[in-house]
Amino acid sequence: MMQKLSQVTVIGTGLIGTSVALALREHDVAVRLSDHSPGNVRDAVAAGAGTALSDADGPADLAVIAVPPSSTARVLRASQQRGLARVYTDVASVKSAVVAAAREAGCDMASFVPGHPLAGGHQSGPQAARADLFADRVWAVCAGEGAADDAMEMVVSTAELTGSVVCLVDPAEHDRAVAVSSHVPHIVSSALAALFADTSSLTLRLAGQGVLDATRIAAGDPALWADIAKNNSVDIAGVLSTVRDNLTAYISFLLDPVTGQDMDTSALIDLLAAGNRGRDTLLHRQ
Amino acid sequence: MMQKLSQVTVIGTGLIGTSVALALREHDVAVRLSDHSPGNVRDAVAAGAGTALSDADGPADLAVIAVPPSSTARVLRASQQRGLARVYTDVASVKSAVVAAAREAGCDMASFVPGHPLAGGHQSGPQAARADLFADRVWAVCAGEGAADDAMEMVVSTAELTGSVVCLVDPAEHDRAVAVSSHVPHIVSSALAALFADTSSLTLRLAGQGVLDATRIAAGDPALWADIAKNNSVDIAGVLSTVRDNLTAYISFLLDPVTGQDMDTSALIDLLAAGNRGRDTLLHRQ
Repeated sequence: MMQKLSQVTVIGTGLIGTSVALALREHDVAVRLSDHSPGNVRDAVAAGAGTALSDADGPADLAVIAVPPSSTARVLRASQQRGLARVYTDVASVKSAVVAAAREAGCDMASFVPGHPLAGGHQSGPQAARADLFADRVWAVCAGEGAADDAMEMVVSTAELTGSVVCLVDPAEHDRAVAVSSHVPHIVSSALAALFADTSSLTLRLAGQGVLDATRIAAGDPALWADIAKNNSVDIAGVLSTVRDNLTAYISFLLDPVTGQDMDTSALIDLLAAGNRGRDTLLHRQ
Repeated sequence: MMQKLSQVTVIGTGLIGTSVALALREHDVAVRLSDHSPGNVRDAVAAGAGTALSDADGPADLAVIAVPPSSTARVLRASQQRGLARVYTDVASVKSAVVAAAREAGCDMASFVPGHPLAGGHQSGPQAARADLFADRVWAVCAGEGAADDAMEMVVSTAELTGSVVCLVDPAEHDRAVAVSSHVPHIVSSALAALFADTSSLTLRLAGQGVLDATRIAAGDPALWADIAKNNSVDIAGVLSTVRDNLTAYISFLLDPVTGQDMDTSALIDLLAAGNRGRDTLLHRQ
């Protein structure tokens, strides 16, 4: 039986935390907000995301821990010790490392349901938050990590309340998947964008929509993305090596001694055709 | 004094050639169309891009050679021998190799003005053509390659008639610039997209807007892009090596023996910050 969700506390009022709060406010859920930066709380309150958490507040139905991956277990442990809520979830982009750290920190795993809404933006902070950030996006929720059924049910229904589609995942499978679908694209986009940090004005003049699209996600917060990367380092390094080896293959073909008009381009065409197939698979996925 | 542009012949009715024709038709220029594929000509005529070129047609004011880089010099030479127009231009994405091949083929360089409209789309062929494809886009025109002043003037004014902003370039500088701004982004996007050619359904489910943006240009025609790459192979290989070495640096940091929570992420943050700077430069360019 669905428990009533009347009060939620959000710890970490960045883009994701504040957007969760805004989405829940649209369903008349009372939201308390907390952040290590008082300015972030003020901005989130000003955006209509809720009211500042005070020591006098009783336990919420649910606490959403929306801090960087490396801080999640520590903040979760402190929140549980403080009795901040009956059920806890997080939104970190990596799951195995967070679950392991939570166990190691002695967190109560029966009341903790690890999660990851697959939404974001090229801007960060509470000012960029939107109530519809999660509409029709996937919200990954980890099953099988010891959470009680009613805790799981509450987190799933909260995610659905924001407009998300819930996808139950295993933490390790999640991390392998997002290494490909999110973390490596971010790093590759960043490596491409870095070419423009110091380039000629002619190069900038001749840059069009293609490279603007390809580098959009390179605008993400470096400290947050470095923290994500270190918490999924092996999966990311593996996938990144595949991309790197692919570029090395292009370079080898391009520097073939038989260059120019006589070059055999069949190997290049094969590589580019694989890109076509991947793009097509991505575009027509269910 | 500007010569009157009343008749233009377009050789190669793909996306670019047909879009040039459509743009000129909006200014009541008579356009004749030719392609090695009769179906492409039919599609371009059906789109309102002009009428099929016939042997009875007299010389046009301008012929636009819109074929792949490796074919440009040959088609230019044949067009000049046939006396197809008074002035000739091309639209190939590489310029040094095309200019060299034109000289080698014995083309008349006084009537040939090499050009490159920086516009395109993720679709190809005459059906994807649009009259406004060049609106507010840069059209690179090569000066100093032997073209007569009136030929240069005609090509510049034709480019401007399509809504483009003309940028006069040196062929070698152009090729170095587009290696960074266009060719390498295409290859990197393709290498990223190739990850999805054979991946798990969970990975596809967890893919969001970020990777869709980053892989959009990977949909380009492999044969055309391989032909572009082989005609700018040294510049592309050099820039691609920079990106490849950048990815290798990420991999090294991620596989540092001190992984997990204790990893020093300062090197990762520096790499990601360079991506931020490049993205910012690109976004705020003039």
